[in-house]
Amino acid sequence: MQKPRKLGRGVAVVGAGMSRFGMFKDKDSKYLFAEAFNEMLATVDRGVDPRDIDALYLGNFTNDFFVRQGHWGPIIADLIGLTPKPATRTEGACASSALALREGVLAIASGLYDMVLAGGGEEMSKRNTEEVTQGLAMAAIPYEVRAGFTFPGVFGATATAYFARYRANREHLMNVTIKSHNNARLNPKAQFNLSIHDIMNQKIERARKKGEPVPEWSDEKEFLGDPKANPVVAWPMHLYDCCPISDGASCVLLVAEELARTFSNNPLYIVGTGQGSGKGLHAKEDLSCFEATRYAAQEAYELSGLKPEDVQIAEVHDCFSIAEILHLEDLGFFRPGGGYKAVEQGLTGLNGSKPINTSGGLKCKGHPVGATGTGQVIEIWKQLRGEAGDRQVPISDLRIGATHNLGGTGGTCTFTIFERR
Amino acid sequence: MQKPRKLGRGVAVVGAGMSRFGMFKDKDSKYLFAEAFNEMLATVDRGVDPRDIDALYLGNFTNDFFVRQGHWGPIIADLIGLTPKPATRTEGACASSALALREGVLAIASGLYDMVLAGGGEEMSKRNTEEVTQGLAMAAIPYEVRAGFTFPGVFGATATAYFARYRANREHLMNVTIKSHNNARLNPKAQFNLSIHDIMNQKIERARKKGEPVPEWSDEKEFLGDPKANPVVAWPMHLYDCCPISDGASCVLLVAEELARTFSNNPLYIVGTGQGSGKGLHAKEDLSCFEATRYAAQEAYELSGLKPEDVQIAEVHDCFSIAEILHLEDLGFFRPGGGYKAVEQGLTGLNGSKPINTSGGLKCKGHPVGATGTGQVIEIWKQLRGEAGDRQVPISDLRIGATHNLGGTGGTCTFTIFERR
Repeated sequence: MQKPRKLGRGVAVVGAGMSRFGMFKDKDSKYLFAEAFNEMLATVDRGVDPRDIDALYLGNFTNDFFVRQGHWGPIIADLIGLTPKPATRTEGACASSALALREGVLAIASGLYDMVLAGGGEEMSKRNTEEVTQGLAMAAIPYEVRAGFTFPGVFGATATAYFARYRANREHLMNVTIKSHNNARLNPKAQFNLSIHDIMNQKIERARKKGEPVPEWSDEKEFLGDPKANPVVAWPMHLYDCCPISDGASCVLLVAEELARTFSNNPLYIVGTGQGSGKGLHAKEDLSCFEATRYAAQEAYELSGLKPEDVQIAEVHDCFSIAEILHLEDLGFFRPGGGYKAVEQGLTGLNGSKPINTSGGLKCKGHPVGATGTGQVIEIWKQLRGEAGDRQVPISDLRIGATHNLGGTGGTCTFTIFERR
Repeated sequence: MQKPRKLGRGVAVVGAGMSRFGMFKDKDSKYLFAEAFNEMLATVDRGVDPRDIDALYLGNFTNDFFVRQGHWGPIIADLIGLTPKPATRTEGACASSALALREGVLAIASGLYDMVLAGGGEEMSKRNTEEVTQGLAMAAIPYEVRAGFTFPGVFGATATAYFARYRANREHLMNVTIKSHNNARLNPKAQFNLSIHDIMNQKIERARKKGEPVPEWSDEKEFLGDPKANPVVAWPMHLYDCCPISDGASCVLLVAEELARTFSNNPLYIVGTGQGSGKGLHAKEDLSCFEATRYAAQEAYELSGLKPEDVQIAEVHDCFSIAEILHLEDLGFFRPGGGYKAVEQGLTGLNGSKPINTSGGLKCKGHPVGATGTGQVIEIWKQLRGEAGDRQVPISDLRIGATHNLGGTGGTCTFTIFERR
């Protein structure tokens, strides 16, 4: 089967919307999805009649376990008025809605459908930390959990391997954290929209008011290095290296390429889509890379005819600070061992040559797992259309963006490349 | 979007395999899947190198809840040697692997892949009845469960509505049960392979041996009408109207139409695929039909250019005896109210003009929910290729078969039409 791959017809994004990400203990995730859907409708420049949607693909990971509700597809289809159109749930742990996006693309490329809604949602904050840990552990390879690995543990081990191999250290992780918070500060939909500086000042202010000893941090790194302010979770993963528990929903509207201009003045064309699967930690020759990400990237680059250097901006799966660095390398943006240096040099910042996670990423925008894949697309949609407001990157002729989503301990990875024409 | 739909390229089945269905408390469902995969490989007439498989689609409903394992796609991909190829889990309750089949078809039709494995599996018997009931309830619309409906309750209400509308009665349901057991008797993979006659005789024999009063049933219907032998579950659903709790796995190998003869002497071409979604019971104008089945059927008929009368043999979703009757009508095989009469007249029997569920159906072959969709395909594969052994139907020029799968209380329905050329 070694032929060059090609989709039967092109697919474009003509609308994108998300709920705010955060902890909404009083909100059912169904209604977060409705919020995302309504926002999406408002972004379709030339308007759309929802009755023209042919099918729904919906990513979700934990509803069975956290909400005791499976079979979410038809429930959401009914809520937004799509019944009796087909509604399919996809699950690939934290990459669940990236799979929904991909199946939506394939359904249109196949010729069967002209317009597909792809999205996802997750409701996590109503469960306590122990339950959430237990639920998320279902994304790992079974023995990993039995061996005592939680997700911070897996990524802690990954970071340790990376440190050993490339002489990186915790300070390099802090660069990622500081950047994520700076970006999220400019994103009103983000769960944490304070910079590390803001957080420091807030804590200092609070100590003053309470008459407690006022902490003396000279800069953000001193704050992040203070074990009281930033306790260890699984070394070297500290609190501010880890993404939060979140609720949220997101969705995008896909149409066949030839219909894109009917609905949008400025559609994004999906020129590359890739997906790979990965084995457990035991089978990895190198702990500091993800086989599935590499496979997904290769597939998407081949399909698009593009190279890593053509991608001008990307959202990558930074469930932990170290993950962002590793994916920068696995996606070919920087050479192996070059990821942490690129971050250090500011290349991945808002004003850098390759801005990464301008939304704040999973770390600060939030990570309602089933909503993350299509949630990432929304940032690329805004940036490529010049609608990212205060966090708009200053790249002239911004045309190519990409999203990378990872599920579990690397079991599922996807990579999607978008082009504005 | 009112254009005639067409797939970009055709798709064919070139291999099909399943584990035995039953209760295997000592077996992990992963290994049941491996069993199905190995059997599938042996059915590819001209052989296949599994390394040529481009992607895996995997249906599963309850692993999160029953096995505490989500993200099953990459686990199975690793087990059968497919890593790093993409592996996507689909979930539509009891229709989960029919969704996997459909996504596999679309992935090939899109031009992206040439060869896809689609299958599913479920592991149910290790949980007690209460847990299984709770798990399966996650497939229903939330308020249905809160209102006290379990699945036998939903289908009991459905049967009551059907009885009232068409003057059918319990005896008509018994005809379905008797037929299912007669067919399953000839299926070595079936969970229950005794006819109702066999079961009666077994019970009589047992009573004799124990010196207990010997039951006197003059025929199968008297046995099924005896509340001691066939107790009520949710009127009019009695024990022998309900499918069992099962473990099992199944899979089929799909290739692009132009490659079909490279791998198979006798491939089945997928000429129609349809899927629909349904609302909860509250929103049904008529309890005795399934909107989602009708939508799925219409889509598949349109795509194939075929009519219900062209379908010569079918496996339909008989989770309960009444479901088989209703689907015969919703799929257009018989007119509304004509389903129970067709069964009574023997038209749906092994030697009838429209044999239905020659495998024994969910009722007797078993219903490991995530394995059922692709499991149904295996029966059509065998029958259309003339490989169904003792249960081969005596229709000359048997060319067109179909499978119908339902999830939840009708939330997801699929219909697929296969042609031997």
